[in-house]
Amino acid sequence: MSNAPLPRIAVTLGDPAGIGPEVALKALADEAVRGLAPVAVFGPPKERWAELAGGEPAFLTHALPQGAWDGQLEGVELVQVEADLAGLSPGGPSRTSGEASIRYVLAAVEAAKRGWIDAIVTGPISKEAVAMAGYAWPGHTELLADEFGAGEVAMMFAGGPFRVVLVTIHVALAEAIRSLTVGRILTACRLGSEAVRRWFGVAVPRLGVCGLNPHAGEAGRFGHEEREIIGPAIEEANAAGLCAFGPLPADTAFRQAMQGKFDLVVAMYHDQGLIPIKTVAFEESVNVTLGLPVVRTSVDHGTAYDIAGRGLADPSSMKAAVRLAVEMVRRGRGAN
Amino acid sequence: MSNAPLPRIAVTLGDPAGIGPEVALKALADEAVRGLAPVAVFGPPKERWAELAGGEPAFLTHALPQGAWDGQLEGVELVQVEADLAGLSPGGPSRTSGEASIRYVLAAVEAAKRGWIDAIVTGPISKEAVAMAGYAWPGHTELLADEFGAGEVAMMFAGGPFRVVLVTIHVALAEAIRSLTVGRILTACRLGSEAVRRWFGVAVPRLGVCGLNPHAGEAGRFGHEEREIIGPAIEEANAAGLCAFGPLPADTAFRQAMQGKFDLVVAMYHDQGLIPIKTVAFEESVNVTLGLPVVRTSVDHGTAYDIAGRGLADPSSMKAAVRLAVEMVRRGRGAN
Repeated sequence: MSNAPLPRIAVTLGDPAGIGPEVALKALADEAVRGLAPVAVFGPPKERWAELAGGEPAFLTHALPQGAWDGQLEGVELVQVEADLAGLSPGGPSRTSGEASIRYVLAAVEAAKRGWIDAIVTGPISKEAVAMAGYAWPGHTELLADEFGAGEVAMMFAGGPFRVVLVTIHVALAEAIRSLTVGRILTACRLGSEAVRRWFGVAVPRLGVCGLNPHAGEAGRFGHEEREIIGPAIEEANAAGLCAFGPLPADTAFRQAMQGKFDLVVAMYHDQGLIPIKTVAFEESVNVTLGLPVVRTSVDHGTAYDIAGRGLADPSSMKAAVRLAVEMVRRGRGAN
Repeated sequence: MSNAPLPRIAVTLGDPAGIGPEVALKALADEAVRGLAPVAVFGPPKERWAELAGGEPAFLTHALPQGAWDGQLEGVELVQVEADLAGLSPGGPSRTSGEASIRYVLAAVEAAKRGWIDAIVTGPISKEAVAMAGYAWPGHTELLADEFGAGEVAMMFAGGPFRVVLVTIHVALAEAIRSLTVGRILTACRLGSEAVRRWFGVAVPRLGVCGLNPHAGEAGRFGHEEREIIGPAIEEANAAGLCAFGPLPADTAFRQAMQGKFDLVVAMYHDQGLIPIKTVAFEESVNVTLGLPVVRTSVDHGTAYDIAGRGLADPSSMKAAVRLAVEMVRRGRGAN
């Protein structure tokens, strides 16, 4: 293991008008973070990054235009991606900021496809800005799934005592309920179990699968989804060799996970998974995309345009995202 | 204040086949708990209680049949309520256990109506047993609302850093969404604000009102309820003199409440409020009914038939429920 090459990490700066450039700068300025692995930062030219971030990236080993970079990584490399930032200033979404944020990610994907990096850590982008720039992707997850040709992906969050995979994500709650199917729950269980095995080193991950309704439906008194959809999905998961428990009342499932009873909680909808993780582990919560050929982690916050360019952004989540990416690549090598 | 009479607390034992008798015994055996105020316990005869609880209530000052009790309270009084427990043993719901559990509560209500007690602390009852005994009430809240003739009630939970009032409670999640109205949200805001003012001593409670959808709907992208129902309810609440903020993304609202930004969180559905409170403050979480003429607190767990009669039950929630009832009555006297 000690002779294994270091994990090679890509960091994309996110929307240049948001807090991404600042949290990346602050995170990598911390020697304990940049010392973990060689890092390729995908963003604008060095001076522009400094301007947007309100500080100098004095830690850079090199800064090269994307076309000139040959994949060599030593310390922190800035890969300068072509994107017109004329007139851009921090504080709000624009066609310009959306276009640049997508280009940074596409450049990192390109590097991953060439085998130059093992993990992509993404700074926050804005759905609105991305749409203004004419892209249909609602977020990183969809972009990465498309670009890597991944059939099925899932969103996982890791933070504090929790790992949580979501069955449904960014849809209205009523729509999330309507879209629950045995297949979707199985996919989340399968990708989640595989990820915890491969990237977190648990040989047989124990999944705690939440119900949808209060008290997990209380034997059918408060809703039928547990009996008709979630219960059958759990049976199929176990028949397929996974180790899944439930449907669990969601208000006790996370407590049980904290007590070590489960390695992963499977949440039916966004807030079911995000409420406990953000309440208990706000600063250190990391978003992980499952189902891609590379590790992908992300900060667990948005562009925060309202504080962009003011030096107030907290880099904790970016630090945690880099750390987790490094750990996942390391464990993944051990496991495979 | 020091000359004010002590709060007089009723404790109902709950379903005699559940863990209620045991947690009440264990809680009151703790001198720090029973020293807080005089307590009237509503349950079976002393020997039967001891049998069901697996221990002697050696701390009792008196034990009297309900008809012989004249409302005098000194130390811990057992008010023996007539109910046939022949053949009953711990471990499951029955007509017998349901009938007895309701009679204990009705006796406490009777005492409250006579002005003999200031607060009712309830042990857990079973919906199933209560239905077997022929009662239509699905739980304490509905029973108490009916018996006290309360027009509007609401369920609040207090525990750790949180106070949370629920807009919808024990219904399927899809039904909870369908039943959201401006009026219901306003009622929860009004009763919640009034309760926090009166019983918790906050002059102008700041309410954090959760959205329903991920990211509180993200400006209408993920659902319309924030714009059409929750937002207007918040406006009406503020127009009526309350201090309400939102709609807030539910996954950050509780973090903000922990940081002291809100005195009360208004949750749209059961798990939205219960997930954070049970995850962060499991043992000390207390259920409070708002809108009644007396204080009512309750343990935050069920009958736990599976461990009843085995000496394993944790009295923490019962202790917290008694403590909170005492505090609420004290503060209520100061405020009015």
